[in-house]
Amino acid sequence: MTIPKVGITLGDPGGVGPEIVLKAFSGKYSLPRADYILFGSSLVIEEAKKALGIELEIKPWDKLHKNRATFDLSFLEIDCPLKKIKKGSPSKENGLASFLFFKEAFQEARKGKIQALVTAPISKKSWDLAGLEWRGHTDFLGQFYPQAIMAFWSEKIKIALYTHHLPLKNALKEIKKEKLSKFFLLLSKSLERTRFGEFEFLVAGLNPHAGEEGLLGSEEKEEIIPAIRKAQSKGVAISGPFPPDVVFRKALGHSEKIVIALYHDQGLIAFKLESFENGVNLTLGLPFIRTSPDHGTAFDIAEKNMANPQSMIEAIKLACELSQASFQLSP
Amino acid sequence: MTIPKVGITLGDPGGVGPEIVLKAFSGKYSLPRADYILFGSSLVIEEAKKALGIELEIKPWDKLHKNRATFDLSFLEIDCPLKKIKKGSPSKENGLASFLFFKEAFQEARKGKIQALVTAPISKKSWDLAGLEWRGHTDFLGQFYPQAIMAFWSEKIKIALYTHHLPLKNALKEIKKEKLSKFFLLLSKSLERTRFGEFEFLVAGLNPHAGEEGLLGSEEKEEIIPAIRKAQSKGVAISGPFPPDVVFRKALGHSEKIVIALYHDQGLIAFKLESFENGVNLTLGLPFIRTSPDHGTAFDIAEKNMANPQSMIEAIKLACELSQASFQLSP
Repeated sequence: MTIPKVGITLGDPGGVGPEIVLKAFSGKYSLPRADYILFGSSLVIEEAKKALGIELEIKPWDKLHKNRATFDLSFLEIDCPLKKIKKGSPSKENGLASFLFFKEAFQEARKGKIQALVTAPISKKSWDLAGLEWRGHTDFLGQFYPQAIMAFWSEKIKIALYTHHLPLKNALKEIKKEKLSKFFLLLSKSLERTRFGEFEFLVAGLNPHAGEEGLLGSEEKEEIIPAIRKAQSKGVAISGPFPPDVVFRKALGHSEKIVIALYHDQGLIAFKLESFENGVNLTLGLPFIRTSPDHGTAFDIAEKNMANPQSMIEAIKLACELSQASFQLSP
Repeated sequence: MTIPKVGITLGDPGGVGPEIVLKAFSGKYSLPRADYILFGSSLVIEEAKKALGIELEIKPWDKLHKNRATFDLSFLEIDCPLKKIKKGSPSKENGLASFLFFKEAFQEARKGKIQALVTAPISKKSWDLAGLEWRGHTDFLGQFYPQAIMAFWSEKIKIALYTHHLPLKNALKEIKKEKLSKFFLLLSKSLERTRFGEFEFLVAGLNPHAGEEGLLGSEEKEEIIPAIRKAQSKGVAISGPFPPDVVFRKALGHSEKIVIALYHDQGLIAFKLESFENGVNLTLGLPFIRTSPDHGTAFDIAEKNMANPQSMIEAIKLACELSQASFQLSP
């Protein structure tokens, strides 16, 4: 069996990224068999190792080296002008460094050199200070893959967002049947290769009680239902629209069910209540798998050895599981 | 100590209303000391008693009788043209009957003859079949008290809705600072008399990340923050706006914190995930207390002796607790 190559980025050097990555690989947790490559700076890694008291030998990544059928961790030094690490707040240097780690890993993924990418948290503010135009990983990915889908994944509940970082008013304007049905098809297709079982999609309504037969809004009748019908006619296992305050309970605990939320908070209110420390952020619709922990840089606890690596570990496991599955289907 | 008079309506005779009311008073559960008056039809009560095997003597309500310092349950026969009860689906006769039970209880509450009203679920469809123009209890109450506030209450989480049964598009148009600050003040005032401790209000933002400094929407800066400032300047303990996917976790488990949700599903997605079987629907801003269980007629399980009375019991307890407190403050 071929094992996947999984790239891991360190995130913002001033936040908890380096800490949760090193903790995940400290040997205390069991991780799937994979060829892991850290994209980062040895300055950042050495400083974090010292602060955390973690002993970890990481050898340089040998790109030409063949897949090994064992667990393996290597390192790619990214050239960046980082001299001294400022912890605990956004900074220009950290912003640029975290971007360069990510960009390099992204390029390797894009070329097919790695099959999955796990990104530790960056700071939007640091990126902004570094003069970068993107508002985060997903925003950057969206430039190359405009149809990238933001999804949130845990044992308890799985959610895909139809729209994400838009003012609510603008998200409403996106509720159009053609666009919706395209999204349903792309989402279904992007998961086809990643799992042996079948997923089932439950679409949330937009309005209270999913419009209650048009009494509380017309988008369900005019846009959402036609889009669902169209996807059904193409063989997608999709149903709804369900009342937004009911649909999440329908999916809770059913690992094959994915709720399609129409706007950011519809999905995230439910996800953050149900999967606070073990949720994973997953980007679908890319030619590779990308996951990340479902939390930010947590500047307030950086350097305190207090960060919980659980969400990072779940992100690594999911990246391996999904890329593994797609390998096995198309070796 | 004066004990409160609490009216209880039977709800739609075809649904689980009569069952949960009778179960609540069957003697199996401990209820607060109060003077309870059932508003309903003896035909409905007798049939439910037989079906459930519940023995319960209920004497007619004597309006002139003074408050008794003991637990007491009496009954007011409401004149209605109900001859035979159709169970398990909406019907015109049941719609009219449930409306008449409610209307009579409402009138007694309005006159100050009872201090709290607990309503078992009605069917909007039954009311519609009976030619009634209102879309439910809250809609009817809103005609007399346009500023009535819908709130949801449980040990774990408390939520007040700024808007409720509106298409989402229209709810957005209601986000105006003057209206918002009036709402904050009314909500605060309506709870002043009902509790010895102080409540604290947390306002949810409208947009993802509460607008992220205007990058993801302007309503926070232009409308919501000024409204919060104004309420603060009048002494209300209120803060926000918080990111909608964060605010509920902030309030969870803090019994003195109430989240103000700006639209129906923002509040109800969280509430239904956290308080499924023990939630209570509470109407504030009325001169009396009104509560109801947080579920519908459940036609599918009517007549099967399967309904769980827990939410009804919580609704009764909350009605007693809140009306009791206001009594004690203004005897």
